[in-house]
Amino acid sequence: MILVITGNGKGKTTSAIGQMIRVLGHGKRVLFIQFIKHKDFPTGEDKTIEQLGDMVTAIKGGRGFVGILGDTLPFTEHQEAAQDTLVYATELATTGLYDLVVLDEVNVAVHLKLISVEDVITFVQSVPIPCDVVLTGRYADQRIIELADYVTECVEVKHPFAKKIPAQKGIEY
Amino acid sequence: MILVITGNGKGKTTSAIGQMIRVLGHGKRVLFIQFIKHKDFPTGEDKTIEQLGDMVTAIKGGRGFVGILGDTLPFTEHQEAAQDTLVYATELATTGLYDLVVLDEVNVAVHLKLISVEDVITFVQSVPIPCDVVLTGRYADQRIIELADYVTECVEVKHPFAKKIPAQKGIEY
Repeated sequence: MILVITGNGKGKTTSAIGQMIRVLGHGKRVLFIQFIKHKDFPTGEDKTIEQLGDMVTAIKGGRGFVGILGDTLPFTEHQEAAQDTLVYATELATTGLYDLVVLDEVNVAVHLKLISVEDVITFVQSVPIPCDVVLTGRYADQRIIELADYVTECVEVKHPFAKKIPAQKGIEY
Repeated sequence: MILVITGNGKGKTTSAIGQMIRVLGHGKRVLFIQFIKHKDFPTGEDKTIEQLGDMVTAIKGGRGFVGILGDTLPFTEHQEAAQDTLVYATELATTGLYDLVVLDEVNVAVHLKLISVEDVITFVQSVPIPCDVVLTGRYADQRIIELADYVTECVEVKHPFAKKIPAQKGIEY
């Protein structure tokens, strides 16, 4: 089953984490791969995932925000990081050890042209059945949507940043 | 902060679970209350939540599907269960022990008239600041949306039931 969680609203990564928690409860194994997100920016979920032990393999392969919020890294380095992450994800996913593979923010990585949609489709098709695949991030490519069984769009109805409240620990990260 | 996750798409409960995982990673405590959902129907997330230990208090206060899918329970018993769950949630939430309170499927409980929207609003207002509150379920009442800081609507773009694939373990539960 291929699930896509896209849209401009909050709850895409959080939903993928929830999906992981559900699957783990059935005694299954999860590969949780994050694009864009940088390992030097720890989130609450990182610590809980660590606590869940060796049923989860979690990789944060990104180099942080791309071209915004003070990013000074050359674009090619973001591309290289994303491409390496996808190669590593392929090595792990094709072992057949996992029951769920999450590619978090992969839709954004495609949208920003860090990786090609063709490479992501090749990845998804390489994952051994019956392993489920979740692809998150806004701007999901139409070809990813066509490939998917399940697509949810998280639509922002109301957002506190409009009230100038900054990102909050435990809410956004 | 009050968060509402509504809409007809997949990912509302899973997103609330993800939010819980994030908050726990920051060393905080969570009260996770489920309406409608019945304790005799175990889900994957139940088992992982158990494993997370005493930082989470999880209560499944529902009696199952209401008026659909073979439900034969008198409506008043569903109402009583939902009302008791809200009373119990109030007792726990007002202790001030928690940093996040989730009322899962509460919007559906209101929509089905198991509990009143006024009682839910009273509950939310009774939760001591700075504890965050997440309210999930489709059909969120307009007054709940007005109360919220953050509202995401999960919109179903594509759903495998349309292809007659039944609910799958690890995906829907």
